[in-house]
Amino acid sequence: MEKRKFLLWKDVNISGGLLGEKQRVNEKVTIPYLFQSYEETGRFDFLKNGWNIHKKYEPHHFWDSDIAKLIEAAAYTLITNPSKETEERLDNLIEAFEKKQQSDGYLNTYFSNFCIEYRFTDLMMMHELYCAGHLIEAAVAYYEASGKRTLLNIICRYLECINTHIGKENGKIHGYDGHPEIELALMRLYHVTSEKKYYQMASYYIEERGTKPYFFEEEAYAEKIDITKPHREIYDIGSFYVQNKKNTDNINPMMIPKARQERVYKWYLPSKGAFAQFSANAPVRELKEPAGHAVRAMYLYCAMADLAEYDETLLETCRRLWRELVDKQMYITGGIGQSQECERFSYAYDLPNEGNYCETCASIGLFMWAKRMLCLELKSEYADVMERALYNGIMSGCSSDGKAFFYANHMAMYPKQYTEGSYVIQSEDRISPIRRKTFSISCCPANYARLIASIGGYFYSVDDDNLYIHLYNESSIEYCFSGIKTKIEQITDYPREETITILINPEETVKFGIYLRIPGWCRQWSCLVNNEKQKLKSKNGYICIQREWKQGDKILLITRMEPVLYVANPKVRQNSGKIAVMRGPIVYCMEEADNFTELSDFVIRSSEKIMVESTKTFEGFPVLCMKGRKTDISEWGNKLYQDIHEKKQIDVIGTAIPYYMWANRGLGEMLVWINAE
Amino acid sequence: MEKRKFLLWKDVNISGGLLGEKQRVNEKVTIPYLFQSYEETGRFDFLKNGWNIHKKYEPHHFWDSDIAKLIEAAAYTLITNPSKETEERLDNLIEAFEKKQQSDGYLNTYFSNFCIEYRFTDLMMMHELYCAGHLIEAAVAYYEASGKRTLLNIICRYLECINTHIGKENGKIHGYDGHPEIELALMRLYHVTSEKKYYQMASYYIEERGTKPYFFEEEAYAEKIDITKPHREIYDIGSFYVQNKKNTDNINPMMIPKARQERVYKWYLPSKGAFAQFSANAPVRELKEPAGHAVRAMYLYCAMADLAEYDETLLETCRRLWRELVDKQMYITGGIGQSQECERFSYAYDLPNEGNYCETCASIGLFMWAKRMLCLELKSEYADVMERALYNGIMSGCSSDGKAFFYANHMAMYPKQYTEGSYVIQSEDRISPIRRKTFSISCCPANYARLIASIGGYFYSVDDDNLYIHLYNESSIEYCFSGIKTKIEQITDYPREETITILINPEETVKFGIYLRIPGWCRQWSCLVNNEKQKLKSKNGYICIQREWKQGDKILLITRMEPVLYVANPKVRQNSGKIAVMRGPIVYCMEEADNFTELSDFVIRSSEKIMVESTKTFEGFPVLCMKGRKTDISEWGNKLYQDIHEKKQIDVIGTAIPYYMWANRGLGEMLVWINAE
Repeated sequence: MEKRKFLLWKDVNISGGLLGEKQRVNEKVTIPYLFQSYEETGRFDFLKNGWNIHKKYEPHHFWDSDIAKLIEAAAYTLITNPSKETEERLDNLIEAFEKKQQSDGYLNTYFSNFCIEYRFTDLMMMHELYCAGHLIEAAVAYYEASGKRTLLNIICRYLECINTHIGKENGKIHGYDGHPEIELALMRLYHVTSEKKYYQMASYYIEERGTKPYFFEEEAYAEKIDITKPHREIYDIGSFYVQNKKNTDNINPMMIPKARQERVYKWYLPSKGAFAQFSANAPVRELKEPAGHAVRAMYLYCAMADLAEYDETLLETCRRLWRELVDKQMYITGGIGQSQECERFSYAYDLPNEGNYCETCASIGLFMWAKRMLCLELKSEYADVMERALYNGIMSGCSSDGKAFFYANHMAMYPKQYTEGSYVIQSEDRISPIRRKTFSISCCPANYARLIASIGGYFYSVDDDNLYIHLYNESSIEYCFSGIKTKIEQITDYPREETITILINPEETVKFGIYLRIPGWCRQWSCLVNNEKQKLKSKNGYICIQREWKQGDKILLITRMEPVLYVANPKVRQNSGKIAVMRGPIVYCMEEADNFTELSDFVIRSSEKIMVESTKTFEGFPVLCMKGRKTDISEWGNKLYQDIHEKKQIDVIGTAIPYYMWANRGLGEMLVWINAE
Repeated sequence: MEKRKFLLWKDVNISGGLLGEKQRVNEKVTIPYLFQSYEETGRFDFLKNGWNIHKKYEPHHFWDSDIAKLIEAAAYTLITNPSKETEERLDNLIEAFEKKQQSDGYLNTYFSNFCIEYRFTDLMMMHELYCAGHLIEAAVAYYEASGKRTLLNIICRYLECINTHIGKENGKIHGYDGHPEIELALMRLYHVTSEKKYYQMASYYIEERGTKPYFFEEEAYAEKIDITKPHREIYDIGSFYVQNKKNTDNINPMMIPKARQERVYKWYLPSKGAFAQFSANAPVRELKEPAGHAVRAMYLYCAMADLAEYDETLLETCRRLWRELVDKQMYITGGIGQSQECERFSYAYDLPNEGNYCETCASIGLFMWAKRMLCLELKSEYADVMERALYNGIMSGCSSDGKAFFYANHMAMYPKQYTEGSYVIQSEDRISPIRRKTFSISCCPANYARLIASIGGYFYSVDDDNLYIHLYNESSIEYCFSGIKTKIEQITDYPREETITILINPEETVKFGIYLRIPGWCRQWSCLVNNEKQKLKSKNGYICIQREWKQGDKILLITRMEPVLYVANPKVRQNSGKIAVMRGPIVYCMEEADNFTELSDFVIRSSEKIMVESTKTFEGFPVLCMKGRKTDISEWGNKLYQDIHEKKQIDVIGTAIPYYMWANRGLGEMLVWINAE
């Protein structure tokens, strides 16, 4: 199977540009802020000192993964922004994990602190292997960044323990985690260590998943609970313990599981098959469409793509799932997982704008999966989706100042829905109308931090004779082609500007191919090599310049960046009669702050040219001005309904800014999909 | 205060027309079906024989009200469709209630069967006074229909008991019911018996409601539950008892309340004030807008309007609430209560189409309130709203065959949302995508039945010198003006046809005024008396013909009935860019059965004339044909998003049928608000 290797994050020097700026904010603000936040919320204390009834915080069963992701993020910065202090912090945390490790290698702070006797008894809900997976990723990152093997050794001992208890052999639990993650982490560990056993473990989890009899059902039967009803009671022993100790007078031991029953009940999704919520409704090769929890699905698909390098049938499955996702269930921002209910996919062509979910982590998962698909097949659509997700659905997850986060990324905002509407909405912090400092379940902020810190690792891939450039941002690499060290530099302000200059400086003249992605959104492009226009045709979305490169060679790629109005497939009922505006890969939106209230009343004249206004910019991006009309409210009166002939319209200009920067100016209306004539 | 009296249901003979047909189906199909359904679901058995662990059904704490509403509905038919069998049935049920009555007059089947010691301890949730109210209404109706006082006597004894326990005097519970109903019922009883004490009880409940300290809070404190948290645990003792007896091994006594905790938690609506769900967040005169549970609000407003006859300040409040409701929160169908969450109002100008609620009972409540407002003020807008609700949001509650019901009345239907979407939606029978035979909570079917059975009572009102005609349907009355018996007949097929003929036949020539409502939807009308065109101006929406009437006099009112396209207030974001089509008072909708899938992709050309097609009719109504366009799907391909220039459109005719008849042909798409150019 064809296979390109991506250059490692640490081998890509990002000197500036939009992603460089995002990396600086991430290093200087977001990651330090997360350390502070974890301190304040008790996460570090829980790891280091355990829990007792005098502690005010309530631990969550996957806090280990939060810390692991932060270690991973901070580890990446040791190269881009070396800091003794950060390294000491990480060593300190790693030492705490080491102390927590049981003599047989088991390592989970939550179970250790509360209920070690229940370990490996509720893989469906309790995230033990998920936490292990994030610790593996942290270990690999820290090893790659610092050369230190401490965490790697700890986690390898833990994997021995896991392997002793879970696996296909008789006497072991024939199970897998409710939340995939360990599978992709094991493949990452395999690639670093070349230890076949990690590949085998990953492969086992993937092959076992969704087979009959369903493991999650068996696991429930072990507790004598009839899951087919469906009404499985999970027993989150830790939560129970905490609450029980806190209110010994009032709490009945049976009440915790019962209180959570309704939630679990909702997780069971009969119309998509039992356990579809966990992507465990069928053996992986039989999965027909993305279903259930979006992040779970993405992490699973990542591992499937990793394994597909060795198994063509998994590639087939991945291709099918990709088509079902990208052609039917992906927002224009690269947001996925439409439904607030259990953070999941709904169904094909259902893309609600208000009330959507689009978890930041889900877009990150899509980005990670797309990269893996790109390793397997050189098709620009994978990189197009990466770009779409990165600049829109992922970057919207963090505020401009780096200190506030979206968990759900709204596609439309009508603030009264949050201030006066549903109590359910008001009481769920993950669907907040403005970015928040933290969440009751706070997976997204550190996930964003680790992605941005390692973003260089998604730019370039190579094989023996070629360099492939997938994402454009100011950056430089050095790589040896035919043994000749070659420096390659991107000089560009893409996607703010349309010009990308690539400087090639080999130590000696050397022949290799440079593949450049022509972005899917781009209608008109041109390419010059040493100021000479090239006649090139793109193949699978890439152009290839194959030649003898010498010092001082220069490629100029110009990707014309006119604003474009997009319409959605007519099967998407929520977007009928509406358009979305993009400039390059950037999705724009209308915000109340630049316009007026009742944004939905604005109708864009879609035959008119969109004006690009660069005197006012947002993080360097121009605003877009759109001719349109809206109702003359002064003529309307108090009526709720009127004969259409009574309606008067006035001309008005609508202003749009990049979607990812919305909600940086307080609570207000926002629209991506705009009514159009 | 001005006051017109409506002629009683039994004094209006409905000979035919749409409402006559509906009455016939109601008598012959719906009411017998409900008797059968109540038999099958155990409602009658529970009343007559009590409950024990061998019974398979699970009683609901307001089953008494279901039976009461059915008695009321059947009682009305004793005049329109006399039947010994029905009368015996009713006597039999009344006897059962009598047997259930405690020695001190207390009467509630649920508490009697399960937990009499807990009576009057949870007025917020347990619906005791609500059930009493429906029994009062049944008693009044049966007395009016048959002259029999049995049920009236029973209920008057019960009211003595209630009055002993609840009221403003020291030592009594200073409370009121979580669900208003008894107040309007007491006023009805007062009007029949002229017993002042019933007026005083109604007045007490109204005046006490929402005052501080909040009764519902006090009631909770009595159980040592901190309701301000908010997390009040209701104890539905009966449910607990049933389930407990059923599964003595598994059920923990504390589990029932806890399992219901989340639901109650949601009922608390901080943004509208505590207890807004129950319209008990402020003293009634301080209520600013309709909030909380829609049916509760409507029943409360009915009683407030009843009392407003004696208190101008209550009329002011009613007027304010009316404006807030009708100008800001009423669907074009007269549906109200937007939110599926706790069956409640959301906020001004929020009128979601998909996922709306619009309980049938809420529109019935609005209809009842509007009638009472019309007693207080002769303004046609009240009757316009009655008409709007009746022909659309209420009649949609029952299938054409009379045997299936909507609880929530959808304003748009996309079936996949129900078959593949949310589990919450799939598991809630009250928001079913097709009409159902019954519901877990089945208040609407009998409410519909009693309204249709008594619909004549909403047509005509009188004062000393005038007759007021509010609703048009084939019917006749006899009334004495200045002592002269006069027969008045309406000959019309309104609202299918635009012509209304009124025949006046006094026994002798007599002078009185006839007020005719000019429907709010009507742009062009004309009125002829004895074939002579009248020059009349409407005042408050009514024209008045004041003259000496003699035998054979004839009024002809022609209300031009062209299809009209309506737009919603621009503040209604859900309807931006859309129109709704009405012909006369009938709201039309597009259904998949007459059109195609992806109805939302259809765009009506709003400048084109709507064609009225009478060769194909639905219950006698013509279909409407609308010129428009839709996307050429064959040109689209698999893409999810495309440049607007790639989109090709084709011409197509859209067909619309009366909204109230939707979903009589199985599951399919439906739209009321249609995209328009």
